[in-house]
Amino acid sequence: MRDEMPVNRAWILKKRPVGDIAPGDLEFVERPLRDLEPGELLIRNIYLSLDPTNRIWMSDQDQYLPPVEVGDVMRGGTIGVVEVSRSDRFPVGTVVNAGLSGWQSYSIAHEGGVNPVPMLPGVPLTAFMSVLGATGLTAWFGMVDIGKPQPGETVVVSAAAGAVGSIAGQIAKLKGARVIGIAGGPEKCAWLTRDLGFDGAIDYKNEDVGAALDRLCPNGIDVNFENVGGAIMDAVIARMNNFSRMPLCGMISTYNAIGDVPGPSDFARVLMRRILIKGFIVIDYIPRAGEALAELAPWVLGGQIKWKAHAVDGLENAAEAVKRLFTGDHDGKLLIRISPEPAA
Amino acid sequence: MRDEMPVNRAWILKKRPVGDIAPGDLEFVERPLRDLEPGELLIRNIYLSLDPTNRIWMSDQDQYLPPVEVGDVMRGGTIGVVEVSRSDRFPVGTVVNAGLSGWQSYSIAHEGGVNPVPMLPGVPLTAFMSVLGATGLTAWFGMVDIGKPQPGETVVVSAAAGAVGSIAGQIAKLKGARVIGIAGGPEKCAWLTRDLGFDGAIDYKNEDVGAALDRLCPNGIDVNFENVGGAIMDAVIARMNNFSRMPLCGMISTYNAIGDVPGPSDFARVLMRRILIKGFIVIDYIPRAGEALAELAPWVLGGQIKWKAHAVDGLENAAEAVKRLFTGDHDGKLLIRISPEPAA
Repeated sequence: MRDEMPVNRAWILKKRPVGDIAPGDLEFVERPLRDLEPGELLIRNIYLSLDPTNRIWMSDQDQYLPPVEVGDVMRGGTIGVVEVSRSDRFPVGTVVNAGLSGWQSYSIAHEGGVNPVPMLPGVPLTAFMSVLGATGLTAWFGMVDIGKPQPGETVVVSAAAGAVGSIAGQIAKLKGARVIGIAGGPEKCAWLTRDLGFDGAIDYKNEDVGAALDRLCPNGIDVNFENVGGAIMDAVIARMNNFSRMPLCGMISTYNAIGDVPGPSDFARVLMRRILIKGFIVIDYIPRAGEALAELAPWVLGGQIKWKAHAVDGLENAAEAVKRLFTGDHDGKLLIRISPEPAA
Repeated sequence: MRDEMPVNRAWILKKRPVGDIAPGDLEFVERPLRDLEPGELLIRNIYLSLDPTNRIWMSDQDQYLPPVEVGDVMRGGTIGVVEVSRSDRFPVGTVVNAGLSGWQSYSIAHEGGVNPVPMLPGVPLTAFMSVLGATGLTAWFGMVDIGKPQPGETVVVSAAAGAVGSIAGQIAKLKGARVIGIAGGPEKCAWLTRDLGFDGAIDYKNEDVGAALDRLCPNGIDVNFENVGGAIMDAVIARMNNFSRMPLCGMISTYNAIGDVPGPSDFARVLMRRILIKGFIVIDYIPRAGEALAELAPWVLGGQIKWKAHAVDGLENAAEAVKRLFTGDHDGKLLIRISPEPAA
């Protein structure tokens, strides 16, 4: 146990971004840490999850959690290791999922607010920030609970090379569907079809998405796992079948937009084709996480689901790195490596 | 049995309307009827159902049934009486639901394509064109199967004084919800609150819908039974709660529009509030009609659901009368009385 508390480094929301995140919207500061109360832990954060929804939290639009207040530490999911413990349940050295502890190098948490990471042999810690973390749960519940792909059906996933999309598409494949991914650039598309087993991929930066969907989805589309919104969403909806389902996971193409984000340009189709659209947020499914992990963990251990983590070193780089989510300049699940993993 | 077949009068789709239905889009003609084959019936149509979806069928937009072809008899649901029978199952005088037999005074149907109307003591024949027909099934399945109102929840119904809306709202009341209707004009609003037991009504022609919703739905909206689309839909969605449901029954405000009909102006809310939107068409639920009628029939017989039929006399008036659906100049379920009911 340390004699005195370390200095904490943290990203503070300085002002709300207007459009793209700009220099000065976030500020990197040093802050003292207070002493622990009984039952509390000092956690040295190891990995910080960067997610498209971070941009929503920075705004004051109507959203599913309270916005991050200006002046507060930016919200984010972390995994860390207990460095000081005033809890019998979590000895020093325990690796824990610290929840939404924020963009900071240390956090103080009550023992009731953290969970130990169930380390699995051969599974790196980054898996618990991606395929076996909120990312994998998002993909599983959206695809399985809402999309319900049936064998032989056609599933389209947008942002398909992203952290959630790449897993969602593989889940649909494992359920017996034909899966077409939409991604930006030939490398990502090649990854989908060559490495992940997608039946087809559409490079939206270099192809007409509608024409490509016509070619790759000759029987129409039964599930649209929607991650991007806007024109790509419209192109997919235009080809959705009777009784098709659209888990609405995100609309990343719109998160930097100013003003309202319009719905489908042809809403009559939702009626005529009896389409189901369901917005969902992974936090609602946390109580049911076991259902998803019961399928995901064996798939991961058996190599039936592949995933990538893209870790950027240094908390000081978080404000710059988060922008990669919106330019696509990353590869799989985007993380910040704040500090080293404990020795195995 | 007649010696010779009568002359049939019918409305033909002459050309597809552009915008509102105009003179010359439909043409009233006389046509000879062919002789019956074995197993066929000659049905004298008594009531013709006029429905907002008629306007969709007249168009060649993407829709849930094939469009009516130019030159064909206009499609419509009818109830009639068997005048000539070459079927052992349907003697002359049987009152039958003839399905979508069309805007015509007579129709020829195979015995496999019609169903006897299950006449109930004290229930007029028009009930089977409304609360106990497709209208009631639409209201029941949309509200019960998709909307799933829970006791104490707040339900909003648009086009609430219409044939479907007025029944949908009463179903939600019977399920224990608070129900607010949106309708056009003080008389319709008074009917909703005074006669049907709605908890509140908003006259969209004379009130700011958003402000009225704020006043009448202080706990937000849990179910939006959507019949109209456009600005009224947006005002309701803006107040929908977490995990709320939106059975998308119709978008009558848009049926005369030219070009695509846009979706919700604030689609981000569907994500943030985890809203479920489900387009539905009653024909999909016909195999499950018994579930709905098991609740609806006792409610109708017991006076727990009230309903109105607005019958316009004379098939020759159908093309003019159907426009009333879009101006609101009708009162409950709009019908054409083509010929007299059989004497009781």
